[in-house]
Amino acid sequence: MPELRKDPIIGRWVIISSERGKRPTDFQGSLPGKKGGFCPFDTGNEQTTPPEILAYRDNGTAPNTPGWNLRVVANKFPALQIEGELNKQGEGLFDKMNGIGAHEVVIETPEHGETLASMSEGRLEDILWAFRDRILDLRKDQRFRYILVFKNYGEAAGASLEHPHSQLIATPIIPKRVQEEMEGAKAYYSYKERCVFCDIVRQELNQGVRLINENEDFAAVAPFAARFPFETWILPKTHDPLFEDAQKHEYVSLSRILRDILMRVEKVLTNPPYNLIIHNSPLRETDGRYYHWHIELMPKLTRVAGFEWGSGFYINPTPPEEAAKFLRDAIV
Amino acid sequence: MPELRKDPIIGRWVIISSERGKRPTDFQGSLPGKKGGFCPFDTGNEQTTPPEILAYRDNGTAPNTPGWNLRVVANKFPALQIEGELNKQGEGLFDKMNGIGAHEVVIETPEHGETLASMSEGRLEDILWAFRDRILDLRKDQRFRYILVFKNYGEAAGASLEHPHSQLIATPIIPKRVQEEMEGAKAYYSYKERCVFCDIVRQELNQGVRLINENEDFAAVAPFAARFPFETWILPKTHDPLFEDAQKHEYVSLSRILRDILMRVEKVLTNPPYNLIIHNSPLRETDGRYYHWHIELMPKLTRVAGFEWGSGFYINPTPPEEAAKFLRDAIV
Repeated sequence: MPELRKDPIIGRWVIISSERGKRPTDFQGSLPGKKGGFCPFDTGNEQTTPPEILAYRDNGTAPNTPGWNLRVVANKFPALQIEGELNKQGEGLFDKMNGIGAHEVVIETPEHGETLASMSEGRLEDILWAFRDRILDLRKDQRFRYILVFKNYGEAAGASLEHPHSQLIATPIIPKRVQEEMEGAKAYYSYKERCVFCDIVRQELNQGVRLINENEDFAAVAPFAARFPFETWILPKTHDPLFEDAQKHEYVSLSRILRDILMRVEKVLTNPPYNLIIHNSPLRETDGRYYHWHIELMPKLTRVAGFEWGSGFYINPTPPEEAAKFLRDAIV
Repeated sequence: MPELRKDPIIGRWVIISSERGKRPTDFQGSLPGKKGGFCPFDTGNEQTTPPEILAYRDNGTAPNTPGWNLRVVANKFPALQIEGELNKQGEGLFDKMNGIGAHEVVIETPEHGETLASMSEGRLEDILWAFRDRILDLRKDQRFRYILVFKNYGEAAGASLEHPHSQLIATPIIPKRVQEEMEGAKAYYSYKERCVFCDIVRQELNQGVRLINENEDFAAVAPFAARFPFETWILPKTHDPLFEDAQKHEYVSLSRILRDILMRVEKVLTNPPYNLIIHNSPLRETDGRYYHWHIELMPKLTRVAGFEWGSGFYINPTPPEEAAKFLRDAIV
């Protein structure tokens, strides 16, 4: 069973994944990656994945057989384990708990060669609905405090399978990054009585220099203090703490702007690897006034090195205003 | 001039390095790296680097000519710029300041093919003295709040030149990671009246399971909540807030244990890329009771992906106890 351990100095939790238990030789040679060959996510190979938790499929087709448009399955090599009670313990001055959580894979399409940028808006919408359906189901579990939806695209971004997929991990504690955003947004709200994300959207729409695109419901911007070149955030224009509470028309708008942004990124940066995450309110957060869900898209173009690891500072060699202009001007 | 910008939500600063201003095409193809060919850090090429700030050299040899054992020069492509006044400004709700700082390179040896693990202890000691000399000089500058010493070894760890070198960056604000460690250590001290790092050293020496090696002055351990497989910390056994205030015999002990650990890492992981950082107290921190300087060594064996970026959580596939055992058992 994996273990959650807390750094006694800064309070950051890590997952010690003994199931994946890697010996030194497992790291030798190149980093993981798999091209061509057998794909467990292809149509016809349904039996090679854990059973479906959710599927959008053609009428009359049976679970775990062909005929699906999207499947959600448990991760075969989960970072956290679904069965068991949360058991918190000390070890001298250290704190740990067993690694309870959920780790699911959204197989986004039966088409092995598609990308989020090349698939139809309808399919993209389905992916968003699947995220929502899974969040609504997982949030019933009282052991969980947070659900992170994320996607690794390309080997350099950490994807170990080529077939289009994204992932959800439910954790028994609120992750540090999210906690920091909550605290920052709360402090801003206390001071200004306004949501900091709403203020950012307003300023970016007014200034225009970091705006990449917008539609009736969403704005896509290069964040003012972007950590990475061509980092892009997609934010709802009106205040909304929860991804899963969006209106139907908002998922339509979101699939449109997400596809548009990914096409621009693919065009300008020639199909780069990227990480995409959805930042959402923690589960059972009752005060919805100050947090505002959003998507963060981080193309992987630079290496994170000693200075960044040691300081938490980032060096971004492309000013966000220039990145925004390149993406805005791209013809897609 | 580079710019420091603050994320309005979590308060993290980033360096927007317009000097390095990268256009989309600059990222295409593979990531930076240079093998063979001309090396600006080799003996005889002193004129191709900025002038020496410090050098340890043979008697009678002139600055910026051969005859040196170690040189410190300004980084030719600095992340922060040394000239100018600190100028803080707002831009609507955003905060920024101009990118004042220092960015220096320690050319560790004239021997292009050496590594920290293969060089003599005397040379390693010289490198530590050079870090100390530069910290003592840079800390006089009232514009700076922190000096980070770090080393990127290997292309995958972000090194863009092969020749053995490390770097120092002085920043006008205390970096977030350091601030977090200070706050965590302070909170622990308030609660226990003890330094958390001293307690960690004591527990690790007692338990032994995560101890890799020790000598009279230092302990090398796999941290309990290691983010990365084979992450290793080297901590002074007795409380000491400042790297630059160590005793002479401590630099000797440090060079010994550092070399020993790097040899073990090289042996067990077959010469992996790594990042090494020195975490030191911020400049002009007057209360030395709760912080304890230390070295963090992070072999680059896994990819940081969407889950980590989105959550601040890390998934470590090698339990620290197992990593410690592999390193402890290595014959070097």
